[in-house]
Amino acid sequence: VTTLNIPRTIEWIGQLDGCVRLIDQTLLPTEFKFLDCTDLETLREAIVSLRVRGAPAIGVAGAMGLVLGIRTASDSDPAEFNKQLHAAADRLASSRPTAVNLFWALDRMKSCAESNAAQPIPDIKEALLREAMAIRDEDARTCRAIGENGHDLIPEGGGVLTHCNAGSLATAEYGTALALMYSAREHGRRFEVFADETRPLLQGSRLTAWELGKAGIQTTVLCDNMAAQLMKEGRIQIVITGADRIAANGDVANKIGTYGLAVLARAHAIPFYVAAPRSTFDLTLENGDQIPIETRSSAEIREGFGRITAPASANFYSPAFDVTPAGYLSAIVTEQGVIWSPCSQKIREFFSA
Amino acid sequence: VTTLNIPRTIEWIGQLDGCVRLIDQTLLPTEFKFLDCTDLETLREAIVSLRVRGAPAIGVAGAMGLVLGIRTASDSDPAEFNKQLHAAADRLASSRPTAVNLFWALDRMKSCAESNAAQPIPDIKEALLREAMAIRDEDARTCRAIGENGHDLIPEGGGVLTHCNAGSLATAEYGTALALMYSAREHGRRFEVFADETRPLLQGSRLTAWELGKAGIQTTVLCDNMAAQLMKEGRIQIVITGADRIAANGDVANKIGTYGLAVLARAHAIPFYVAAPRSTFDLTLENGDQIPIETRSSAEIREGFGRITAPASANFYSPAFDVTPAGYLSAIVTEQGVIWSPCSQKIREFFSA
Repeated sequence: VTTLNIPRTIEWIGQLDGCVRLIDQTLLPTEFKFLDCTDLETLREAIVSLRVRGAPAIGVAGAMGLVLGIRTASDSDPAEFNKQLHAAADRLASSRPTAVNLFWALDRMKSCAESNAAQPIPDIKEALLREAMAIRDEDARTCRAIGENGHDLIPEGGGVLTHCNAGSLATAEYGTALALMYSAREHGRRFEVFADETRPLLQGSRLTAWELGKAGIQTTVLCDNMAAQLMKEGRIQIVITGADRIAANGDVANKIGTYGLAVLARAHAIPFYVAAPRSTFDLTLENGDQIPIETRSSAEIREGFGRITAPASANFYSPAFDVTPAGYLSAIVTEQGVIWSPCSQKIREFFSA
Repeated sequence: VTTLNIPRTIEWIGQLDGCVRLIDQTLLPTEFKFLDCTDLETLREAIVSLRVRGAPAIGVAGAMGLVLGIRTASDSDPAEFNKQLHAAADRLASSRPTAVNLFWALDRMKSCAESNAAQPIPDIKEALLREAMAIRDEDARTCRAIGENGHDLIPEGGGVLTHCNAGSLATAEYGTALALMYSAREHGRRFEVFADETRPLLQGSRLTAWELGKAGIQTTVLCDNMAAQLMKEGRIQIVITGADRIAANGDVANKIGTYGLAVLARAHAIPFYVAAPRSTFDLTLENGDQIPIETRSSAEIREGFGRITAPASANFYSPAFDVTPAGYLSAIVTEQGVIWSPCSQKIREFFSA
């Protein structure tokens, strides 16, 4: 087993007086630069400006940001400390409204502070730092497990198509959909990766092709409208994407364009897989119709690259996500195993096992 | 019947000492400016730089460019005149290698000169100008006839999806796919138009949305990967595209992405139409497998917006066209009628009628 060169998206450097080091993703692919955040506001701005993005990565950022926000708080006044802790959590929670992992991570950090409330404040601070690092490490382990559970699905010599960035850059490291590719390559398998550029924000060409290239996995970028032709030419043997939310029946919300790819894959008899951690399932939603679809700013289409490319007279249609019905999925790959032909019953069984 | 405000893509202004006036399409959609060409080289550069594009429009440009190239030639020396005529034709033919209408138009102009060879040279020049204007006017009439023959296919209150620019800007005026929309609107029909932005060169957002907007037809631009979701929402009742070449069995080569749209339309039970003049059929090719697929420069994907959006490590897949098998087409709309469920036999019958 080889270990690939996969950069860490976000980590804590040093001790309590250290900093949060993250890859500034807005500079990619032309510039690979780390940003060291030593205070809460710098880190919050990094989330707001998408310097760090991807739900699991934002969760880690939120947890570490909370440590930045409380480390200089009073060491002697518990009331003052708690006030500052909650103010910091609220401030971070307002950075991005939809990333559910952010709220989950902040809640977990607050619980950690509560269960250490009897300790001296300096010890609570240390406990919070350990918890933030644990959240990061757990995410990295989850991603590794997803890769191990799914890498055999990639056939030797095959063509793999992915959409958007469900990679190391969207998580602490290693990714979800890309975890299968990293793991397959670490086990010595050879295959070709194709990455949809993924308009409007080009996460496929800007981020996926970049991180796969860094890891030595050759990647071919295509415009989203070229995927069907690539399938027709017989060059795609498997499609793998991530997920933003999965309903109790297996319907998958993911980056806009995923549903179209699933329909095209079905028409060309190509298996379609979703890779995601257990935490992506939202069992409170019976099916995908209940998943709210965020509409993005029309500016992302109209002038996505700093240049106006549509007339002032135009309207825009710009959903950020679509929902792929479970029936299009060959399987969902999780850190605890593969759910084949997902449906309500199988997902219920998976979670009660 | 209303007449819409549809700008003329290219026309001859004045008499033999006039000029070729064309819309500089590289400036759209932010700037609407005409370019007046008074010499062959200026017009040739306009073709090379895609200031004028679209096979029928390039044909008209070539014919008019030939007039610019010979109008100052000797009025007394037939040998010298002919030499200059052929040199001008060769120079224009080298502007773009693949647009078949260019060669067709130049051949037609040379035939015109030959059949007028007994006339005084000033009369030959006048005959050539008339021929170039006739080529333009015929193209405009052909487009109008396509619109008349197909506009009833657009249902009242329906959603129409198109891809790339098969509009006025690709022809002398009025277009092919867009001709159906212009004609339907002129007959008072109401409907909503959706335009795929059409990566990599964005002809959908830059040109189609612009010219429909000019004509008062409200247009909604979407990224190519959003079309499937729009169909799933029930907002598309008909898909109409143009064609670059149609084989004898009805297989259609058109802008990359067309085939994927056809597969998605079929999956959503939406009719899929191609609008094209008779001259788009290449009856020497039995089927679409024989149509050569041009590969475009990777720069169009890698830095299509003047900014690098993919890493240096990436490869690119960039076919300019794809082929939609005839079985996906509901019909082909031509200036001489509609060919329903096109196949070799029906196309043979159409051309022998």
